[in-house]
Amino acid sequence: MTPSAFPPARFQSFEEKADPSQVAPRLAALRQAMAKAGVDAFLVPRADAHRGESVPPGEARLAYLTGFTGSAGLAVIGKDKAGLFVDSRYTLQAPAQTDTSLVTVHEAVGISPDIAQYVLKGGTLAYDPWLHTPGEVRDLTDKLKGHATLVPHANLVDTIWDDRPGAPVSPIEFLGHNRAGKETADKVADLRAVLAAEPADAVVLTLPESICWLFNMRGRDVPNTPFVLGFAIVPREGLPTLYLDSAKITPELTVALADIATVVEAKTLAAALETLGSDGKTVLIDPQSAPAAVADTLRQAGATLVEKRDPILGPKSRKNEVELAGMREAHTLDGIALAKFLAWFDREAPKGELTETGIVTALEAFRREDDTCVDASFDTISGAGPNGAIVHYRVTSKTDRRLAPGEIMLVDSGAQYLSGTTDITRTLSTGAATAEQQDRYTRVLKGMIAISMARFPKGTTGAQIDVLARQSLWQAGVTYNHGTGHGVGAFLGVHEGPVGIGPRYTAPLEAGNVISNEPGYYKAGEYGIRIENLLVVRESASHPGYLEFETLTLAPIDTRLIDRQLMRPEEIDWLNAYHKRVREEISPRLEGEAKEWLAAATDAI
Amino acid sequence: MTPSAFPPARFQSFEEKADPSQVAPRLAALRQAMAKAGVDAFLVPRADAHRGESVPPGEARLAYLTGFTGSAGLAVIGKDKAGLFVDSRYTLQAPAQTDTSLVTVHEAVGISPDIAQYVLKGGTLAYDPWLHTPGEVRDLTDKLKGHATLVPHANLVDTIWDDRPGAPVSPIEFLGHNRAGKETADKVADLRAVLAAEPADAVVLTLPESICWLFNMRGRDVPNTPFVLGFAIVPREGLPTLYLDSAKITPELTVALADIATVVEAKTLAAALETLGSDGKTVLIDPQSAPAAVADTLRQAGATLVEKRDPILGPKSRKNEVELAGMREAHTLDGIALAKFLAWFDREAPKGELTETGIVTALEAFRREDDTCVDASFDTISGAGPNGAIVHYRVTSKTDRRLAPGEIMLVDSGAQYLSGTTDITRTLSTGAATAEQQDRYTRVLKGMIAISMARFPKGTTGAQIDVLARQSLWQAGVTYNHGTGHGVGAFLGVHEGPVGIGPRYTAPLEAGNVISNEPGYYKAGEYGIRIENLLVVRESASHPGYLEFETLTLAPIDTRLIDRQLMRPEEIDWLNAYHKRVREEISPRLEGEAKEWLAAATDAI
Repeated sequence: MTPSAFPPARFQSFEEKADPSQVAPRLAALRQAMAKAGVDAFLVPRADAHRGESVPPGEARLAYLTGFTGSAGLAVIGKDKAGLFVDSRYTLQAPAQTDTSLVTVHEAVGISPDIAQYVLKGGTLAYDPWLHTPGEVRDLTDKLKGHATLVPHANLVDTIWDDRPGAPVSPIEFLGHNRAGKETADKVADLRAVLAAEPADAVVLTLPESICWLFNMRGRDVPNTPFVLGFAIVPREGLPTLYLDSAKITPELTVALADIATVVEAKTLAAALETLGSDGKTVLIDPQSAPAAVADTLRQAGATLVEKRDPILGPKSRKNEVELAGMREAHTLDGIALAKFLAWFDREAPKGELTETGIVTALEAFRREDDTCVDASFDTISGAGPNGAIVHYRVTSKTDRRLAPGEIMLVDSGAQYLSGTTDITRTLSTGAATAEQQDRYTRVLKGMIAISMARFPKGTTGAQIDVLARQSLWQAGVTYNHGTGHGVGAFLGVHEGPVGIGPRYTAPLEAGNVISNEPGYYKAGEYGIRIENLLVVRESASHPGYLEFETLTLAPIDTRLIDRQLMRPEEIDWLNAYHKRVREEISPRLEGEAKEWLAAATDAI
Repeated sequence: MTPSAFPPARFQSFEEKADPSQVAPRLAALRQAMAKAGVDAFLVPRADAHRGESVPPGEARLAYLTGFTGSAGLAVIGKDKAGLFVDSRYTLQAPAQTDTSLVTVHEAVGISPDIAQYVLKGGTLAYDPWLHTPGEVRDLTDKLKGHATLVPHANLVDTIWDDRPGAPVSPIEFLGHNRAGKETADKVADLRAVLAAEPADAVVLTLPESICWLFNMRGRDVPNTPFVLGFAIVPREGLPTLYLDSAKITPELTVALADIATVVEAKTLAAALETLGSDGKTVLIDPQSAPAAVADTLRQAGATLVEKRDPILGPKSRKNEVELAGMREAHTLDGIALAKFLAWFDREAPKGELTETGIVTALEAFRREDDTCVDASFDTISGAGPNGAIVHYRVTSKTDRRLAPGEIMLVDSGAQYLSGTTDITRTLSTGAATAEQQDRYTRVLKGMIAISMARFPKGTTGAQIDVLARQSLWQAGVTYNHGTGHGVGAFLGVHEGPVGIGPRYTAPLEAGNVISNEPGYYKAGEYGIRIENLLVVRESASHPGYLEFETLTLAPIDTRLIDRQLMRPEEIDWLNAYHKRVREEISPRLEGEAKEWLAAATDAI
């Protein structure tokens, strides 16, 4: 069995869609449109009005214009020059995808003051107010102060994009109480209590994750995340209104939402915002996620704005017992797929024929053996040898690498099951590892175990416990330059706020939070190590007022890379107990070779 | 030998100076003065213009007026009622010291909005602008907005305080390069570079710790800290000026400061500020420590203010090698005194005659055997049994408690040697401890050792590593409600910024920082545990780019309270190596009984 024995990946593609030769004519067309509109520069972000990590094809304006397909970035198109601002993940990919004779790539965190150099002094920089938040607009205004004027404008890319795909229309699925664990009516009641306390007359929700959670619905409007794209207004009194393309509404949903919400066409949102304003309402919006157009429309029509974090994010992050049961089910299904995959990997890797893309395809195929696996939760990071050291590596047919026996393989992947979302990283041995590799692997594992075993008082933040994951690496004088963990949704986004583990996570961890636990170590040009499980924050049964973690992920951790001398007895106990649990929960659902492989892989060390 | 065999403590007193019967006439006199001045309420903080933890007797206005002698607090005296705002350390002491029929005690962190209830709506609240910072005044103004008006006023307490002591006049001692490690001229040059970068034309220094450090001088103006009270202005060009009572100037200092600074009388400061203003200068002041009077005088005279943290605090916290050598010498001297004290304690405690005050007196006597011990660095916390659970307990002759054999004794003390400042806590066994006491003691010790052994990359903050001290306690479902460590000066304040260990310490730790490491556990009504060493942050010799701690404190840690089963091998190794070092460095300076005691107390476990 070789990688080609698997059906092609359905959820992931390895093709580079970029065509740098298109950059010149498209930039020229946009500059014509700019001249006609009387603006000196135009902003093109990699964002839609809903701030998701994935956008539908018709919103991929940055890729259309510059060729750059990364999941974050901002271009500023000036009269004579253009700049593309990307973060450190994309400093290699962006220049490779765009036409660098026409577009200068900058590395930037957040809004860069270097944007100013693309707008003439005293000039006008136009932006589409549906694609930027009020927070971003304020930041941009500050940074351009005294240099250029920022003006909202209809999107000029749309005027030149002839074959622009239409908005996605995927039927909406209603979860029901059995899968959501809480009725929409009860969630809306909680939200109304927040509005009463604020006080605010209404909230405008623009994040699909919030809207999907509140109304217990899911869709397929974008890849990787079961989003329904749309808007919602929830008033303190009266029925909420959902602003959706009516083609997405199924008869089932119509029944489910009767007496709970009114559904109207998305295009009527602006009129509804104007009505809130003319009625003099006080409206809550999130300045870090709502489109500036929403804030501007409300304010100009006379509304008073309360700018606060989206009030759904907190409750959504505290999963209820039904959601957690779903997450456990998803992780059992994922554990079955992982065991099959890892058994296959161990058999095939020594032959020296595996490739990074082949590994992605195989893993997806094992997951898709279960019908409730409906998507990947993100594009698999499949890094062989030195490619494992590229933290956000995404394999393409161009970069695809054969895995040589003896190299270390890093696979970070996840799936969307109807029951829940998974995200798991395993680092795999394919032969004799060096003493240094074993040392680093063991220290990463010790960090992962330290977080898994942590107990901490209520009120503790992810910033506080982060060092537990790093201390063993620090003792060796090394570290990793990423956070230790991020929040994960329940059949929703694989990245969600507000909690996580790392210096920037200053929100207290709360019972029901699901977060990843993924320390790593990366040696550029040689190898990468990351070990990741998902955890649930739980109340401690034995220690009142304290919280602990329950591990969701159920897949063996490669013990061949461990330097046992570095492990403490309680760490070995944790690992052996974890493997025992994996064996007991997964083995009954396996047969033959995979079952045998799992028994050996979960042996006590 | 019993406690009475020691000479009385010279640095510490156990008397309660408060006399609640004086509160009524003094409040009446102040209210008369308020009426005459036409103000409705007056603020009386426990502060002088220099923000030190200790104030000279003539600045102890809060104690004079209310009887309350704590080291922090604020009274607001209204027309008919008066409030005293103290933090959680003083919620028992304050009501005991004041006349509660006339003064209502409130617990508050920072400026409390409850102050408003002591000022009539539309009334005037007066404050002495030398005793409040611009930051405090802004905070107060915000909290009284729409209720009362805040106005600066000459201090009305001074007008009724007939026998108010004059300002302290202690001769100034010049450290010289041998003790300071860096010439004032070089420190001034560094400060000028900061002013040039800002840019600012001058800085006004009002913190004695900054002025003492910059000019390599020390004084005895207040207890516990070798402060010279005064002000300084350092211009970007030209000589700095020191504003001091000329009676403090010794001929030695005059020689030392020639060509380095001009010294003028303190009372000329206001005129100098006005000149800076009328010359249109840009002046740096610290809004969290400078008196509002300084900021107001500058601004009203025409100066532009740059509000930044006192630029001396950073450099001062990074001790140079000469300062560190002095700190090591001070800790050797302190280790000798501690060994004698602990040997004496172990002999006497079983007799059941020791008292908390007797223990303080004995420890001070052992320290004063060395002539270079010039003061206590703070009032000793000497808590027997349940008193050990009161985190900031200060024994008085009223609360003094006999230590019963079997009770746990907590002693947190420190000294000022001419070579440096010490701060050490030891928790001592006097007989069989319970399993719970041993468990908690061992977990506190494990936290203390975890910090001692930590290695971390440059840029890491005290907030990040704090959890290392707590993790073992958290596993048992307990914690402590104070920071893990504070900065310590070199023959200066025992508490200094900007670094420390705890959630609020967000400044990166830097080589040369001296900080305390003092986790604890407190069981109200039963016992308290704290173990404290001082540490120096050092560059790692073995791991480039990483920092480590060197332990300064040299005194045995009571091993009789340890549950060895809870200790990891590397923790036992650390403890045994520490005790070996203590024995090797201290034993040659001891004789007889103390030497024998030390050999036994530092035996490997």
